[in-house]
Amino acid sequence: MENATRIAGLLAEIGADWAILTGADSVCFATGHVVPVEIGFSPFAGGPTIAFVSRDGAVGLVCPNTDAGQGGPWEEISYPGFACAVTDQIGNYLRAVQDMIARLGVAGRVAVEPASLTAAVADLLPGERRVIDRPLARLRAIKTAREINLLRRAAVVAAMGQREAPTASIPGRSELDVLNAIRARMETEVGVRCALAGEYLAGVERSATLGLAPGAYRLRPGDPVVCDLAPRVQGYWGDSCSSFVVGGEGTAAYRAMHDACFGTLQLALSELRPGLRVCEFDARLRAHLKSQGYYYPHHSGHGIGTSVHEWPRLVPDETAMIEENMVLMVEPGSYVPGLGGIRCEFMLRVTRAGAEAMAMF
Amino acid sequence: MENATRIAGLLAEIGADWAILTGADSVCFATGHVVPVEIGFSPFAGGPTIAFVSRDGAVGLVCPNTDAGQGGPWEEISYPGFACAVTDQIGNYLRAVQDMIARLGVAGRVAVEPASLTAAVADLLPGERRVIDRPLARLRAIKTAREINLLRRAAVVAAMGQREAPTASIPGRSELDVLNAIRARMETEVGVRCALAGEYLAGVERSATLGLAPGAYRLRPGDPVVCDLAPRVQGYWGDSCSSFVVGGEGTAAYRAMHDACFGTLQLALSELRPGLRVCEFDARLRAHLKSQGYYYPHHSGHGIGTSVHEWPRLVPDETAMIEENMVLMVEPGSYVPGLGGIRCEFMLRVTRAGAEAMAMF
Repeated sequence: MENATRIAGLLAEIGADWAILTGADSVCFATGHVVPVEIGFSPFAGGPTIAFVSRDGAVGLVCPNTDAGQGGPWEEISYPGFACAVTDQIGNYLRAVQDMIARLGVAGRVAVEPASLTAAVADLLPGERRVIDRPLARLRAIKTAREINLLRRAAVVAAMGQREAPTASIPGRSELDVLNAIRARMETEVGVRCALAGEYLAGVERSATLGLAPGAYRLRPGDPVVCDLAPRVQGYWGDSCSSFVVGGEGTAAYRAMHDACFGTLQLALSELRPGLRVCEFDARLRAHLKSQGYYYPHHSGHGIGTSVHEWPRLVPDETAMIEENMVLMVEPGSYVPGLGGIRCEFMLRVTRAGAEAMAMF
Repeated sequence: MENATRIAGLLAEIGADWAILTGADSVCFATGHVVPVEIGFSPFAGGPTIAFVSRDGAVGLVCPNTDAGQGGPWEEISYPGFACAVTDQIGNYLRAVQDMIARLGVAGRVAVEPASLTAAVADLLPGERRVIDRPLARLRAIKTAREINLLRRAAVVAAMGQREAPTASIPGRSELDVLNAIRARMETEVGVRCALAGEYLAGVERSATLGLAPGAYRLRPGDPVVCDLAPRVQGYWGDSCSSFVVGGEGTAAYRAMHDACFGTLQLALSELRPGLRVCEFDARLRAHLKSQGYYYPHHSGHGIGTSVHEWPRLVPDETAMIEENMVLMVEPGSYVPGLGGIRCEFMLRVTRAGAEAMAMF
């Protein structure tokens, strides 16, 4: 649990004794324990799963019995959430939290996550608080070797989905039919269900419209497709986007736009390096694409890890410095009424002197 | 928003002035606003989406801009969660909550949900608290006409998935391939992606083992299958389970076990009625199945609505009275090493004098 050790170091820096991590992404970052998220908050949980990390490197986990025992050298208390009897999930949860606080001897200053720390848990904790979010986000942005392996695996799974996408994009199928065929390919590869973010939009109008969700629209030959696939594998997200035309190569205008977007992604791969500021990198990508007459109204990308969007987001006003072993999504695109939409997205790992694509497709 | 009016009545009963609902299921119950859950807690949210309901029937909603404007006669404040700029989601969220508290004039006693009320929100609320969970669970158990229509729709979608299941269960496909083919059928019918709980397990050993997740196992002719499908449609869950044999009818022993389980489900349909206690109903089902030599170690079923498992759970020690317009899942099963697993599950609506299946397959 190298990340727990890193968090212990962070606590010393920010003057706190304990981290009380209540976000599913932070819990997984600290311990590797994967909180199931696919149906939202579990009806068998009495509150958020919690990872406790001390300044000395002690680690505790409180989770419902439905996802206990994933293994790891932490103290674990699981509570009855699912049972063949009347079950007081909230009472059981709070008793487990109390037991863990006593067992670990949680005292002093606690660093917490305000988006998810519940009032019921806060009432059990010592009163002196720090907010851990920003320093933790910065710590999480730099990936360990273990995390890079996990992210590479997620990138490879996403790439498998992307390679399946043109084959699965058969005229007459709905967008949702195709997305689920691709999902089947990725999940069978992983061997378990994966939470999946992303989109699959087909047709000139739909592919050029941001903010739509995949629907019952049935593919026609010649439809441009934007296929954005982000599966969660062992708690770490992969992300990716490809753009293609159903059963063909598209018009000359489409191909020119694709070349410009893919070229911008290639530029990103050659430009990305430690020591560059995010805003400079973002500006170079936008300028390169603009010089060819195209433009995207969204971010240039984002960090990724145990959350599908992490700090730093690649936006024009982010002044953070790019560092070695950040893993960044880069996703230039163009959306033109009457022509269609294109977005090209790889996972890029920042290396000592440059960057590498974690998977290509 | 009939349910908001019902909650207002509940507040009067429990001596509270405001309900502060922070569970995604409670928010949907009160307002109809659907919180996306498929990838867990949104990276663009600064805290849980909140529905405010007053004793006078005033309703407010605070949600991120990513899922704002679903429409409804409530006061809505959405905050920037996703933007092409550096964004302080938590700060924006807490300002929106504060604005809503001021706009609605939240004061007096507040009734809260301890599993999800965050400390950051609690700090903004009046200090006098009630816990709303148990009375709200009891209120939610009795469905309105609108909710019954929504649950019937979800039941019909699940039934479509169930009818697709034997056709999709082709030898050589993995469990996850089949589950996603079924999911495609249901989602294309609905027109958008649906959160999906449940399982699909094939083979004598896997179908007879509780607690497994669908995996890469590839179907063989003659495999028994347990197919449990629970899609969320417009915020309301459907649930269902069928059991069948890949490409055939199964052995005589399998068919006898199937008859016993399905017969127990039929018994449930004829026995379920208002005025019966849950524990009596549960005991009758277990006794009927036991008289034929079979047994299940899990609950007999559960309530369903904006959460896939709701009060009352059908367990031996639940003394609650069954009431008209409860919607209950009933799922007798049997799991025999060497023979396989079977579970048969319908959604049953309690009527004035009996019960009806909301969909059959």
